[in-house]
Amino acid sequence: MNSTDRLRQSQSSDALGKLSGPSKADLLNVASLIEPLIHRTPVVTSHYLNELSGASLYFKCEQLQRMGAFKMRGASAAIAALTEQERAAGVVTHSSGNFGQAVALAAKIMGIKAYVVMPQGTPRVKREAVLWYGAEVTDCELNLSAREQATEEIIKITGATALHPSNAMPVILGNATATMELLEEIPELNGVIAPVGGGGLLAGTALATAHFGENCLCWGAEPTAVDDAFRSLKLGVIQTNDQANTIADGLKTQLGSINFPIIQHGVASIFCVDEREIIDSMRLLWERTKMVVEPSSAVVLAAVLKYPAEFRGKKIGLILSGGNVDLSQLPF
Amino acid sequence: MNSTDRLRQSQSSDALGKLSGPSKADLLNVASLIEPLIHRTPVVTSHYLNELSGASLYFKCEQLQRMGAFKMRGASAAIAALTEQERAAGVVTHSSGNFGQAVALAAKIMGIKAYVVMPQGTPRVKREAVLWYGAEVTDCELNLSAREQATEEIIKITGATALHPSNAMPVILGNATATMELLEEIPELNGVIAPVGGGGLLAGTALATAHFGENCLCWGAEPTAVDDAFRSLKLGVIQTNDQANTIADGLKTQLGSINFPIIQHGVASIFCVDEREIIDSMRLLWERTKMVVEPSSAVVLAAVLKYPAEFRGKKIGLILSGGNVDLSQLPF
Repeated sequence: MNSTDRLRQSQSSDALGKLSGPSKADLLNVASLIEPLIHRTPVVTSHYLNELSGASLYFKCEQLQRMGAFKMRGASAAIAALTEQERAAGVVTHSSGNFGQAVALAAKIMGIKAYVVMPQGTPRVKREAVLWYGAEVTDCELNLSAREQATEEIIKITGATALHPSNAMPVILGNATATMELLEEIPELNGVIAPVGGGGLLAGTALATAHFGENCLCWGAEPTAVDDAFRSLKLGVIQTNDQANTIADGLKTQLGSINFPIIQHGVASIFCVDEREIIDSMRLLWERTKMVVEPSSAVVLAAVLKYPAEFRGKKIGLILSGGNVDLSQLPF
Repeated sequence: MNSTDRLRQSQSSDALGKLSGPSKADLLNVASLIEPLIHRTPVVTSHYLNELSGASLYFKCEQLQRMGAFKMRGASAAIAALTEQERAAGVVTHSSGNFGQAVALAAKIMGIKAYVVMPQGTPRVKREAVLWYGAEVTDCELNLSAREQATEEIIKITGATALHPSNAMPVILGNATATMELLEEIPELNGVIAPVGGGGLLAGTALATAHFGENCLCWGAEPTAVDDAFRSLKLGVIQTNDQANTIADGLKTQLGSINFPIIQHGVASIFCVDEREIIDSMRLLWERTKMVVEPSSAVVLAAVLKYPAEFRGKKIGLILSGGNVDLSQLPF
């Protein structure tokens, strides 16, 4: 069985419960499969933020990933898992954010066609990037059914394979490689904290800490305004959000059936942070580390600063998920 | 003669014409003297900006220098050049910008007292940083004579040594180390472009390219609104600015008697760029490299994009001078 076959097999399972879960070898396979397609991103520290938090913080800089977000990892893994025949017909996704860009770029690198359905109100910078990477953009209305309908139409016409941004095993395994790299560099981490929206990054982080950390915990960080993951974990059943009113636009989506059991199994807790705390942390990161990160990235620092007792004296990895911000719409 | 003595000796000369100019050994001495005090900053490239400019651009990231600007290099070199007795009385500078922070931090590291005179209207983030580093801040009115008077008073009371941000040989030699590092990493550069305000960075860049480059040119980049360096170079005499109305607040100061002859001797040309070009380039850098750089840094990219014929097909080093921006006052 080659790595693509293994990957496809893990894709077909839809919950950790149904198999023993992706193995260390599965993770290593995906990592080597996507290695030529992605950047190995740097790990950055800040004296100031260490003093402020009382912990040793190691920021994994996915805003310096290709196309500016960790999504490149999952998108690359998902496309690498396709058969030759599937690749010939191309891929389609609906995304207002980074996954659309990631699919566009990964498809471009692998020489296949990409279709991206984008709702009205998508930040200018994200739309332009998708076009720059050569994908075909289809505009649609802001609601989910309009997106799904537009996607279905493209599939009917082109035979393209639909890629889900977070609820698919190849995407989760691809996302895991960020934490694998981080632990390779700082093996003694006591824990890693990642933002949670759709759950694909957090599930990947949980798998990587379990397989490659030494007693390394995994935590999630989430805007209080869209705390479906926090409530889902507490109640043991996937919860929904009544509204999605947060500045962290990458975290508005909801947990899925494939990533939720992995999160239930591998995540110690999820910390919720308010909008003001997200904005303040984003500003701190910009001012102190000189890095442009998006609000979704800032939630992890916001959580560490809000609950210092949980992290004090520990070595903590923080996944900065991306840096694609519309500079015309800054909150400060 | 130890390195400190050598450095003091170079400090006492006030023009390249009066001696053969600082030697390669002088530069190497300063580099080793300040090495423990500064960061070696990374060199960053961008596919997108290479395509856009038609050149191969190597950004030297001084916004990731300690306190967020190249000024840390010059300030460290200036303080390292002081005698024990001078250090005991401390140092004083007047600065609305990065040099104040640099003196504050370098003094803190070396365990000496720093006094910083800051005019009204200094960006909040810069003032707070100077205080954070433990310097004593004296407020004064916005005009030059108020600054000088406040500085004189501090000297009278404390005996502190005044440090000039740009027109002093140790500062110039300290600044040169940014380009020395850059050329160590990319020895085949065809040229290096640096912003010019007071002239201390550009003079240092000229010395470094002359001593460590292989047929490596040195260029300056300057806001058209304060084009004193451009006019000075053309006329052969230091010119002044009638006004200082530019977003590149680090470049409002004027050339000095020590750095000007070095610039005359070692700089091929100075390119002037308009305010809109500076803002657009700053935005490009933020969006594409995810790095927070200040407007003064953006002038170098603005020059390369404005005069593509000068740079096309060449390997160009660009000194990004700093990243200390007041996020409440962004131009986009």
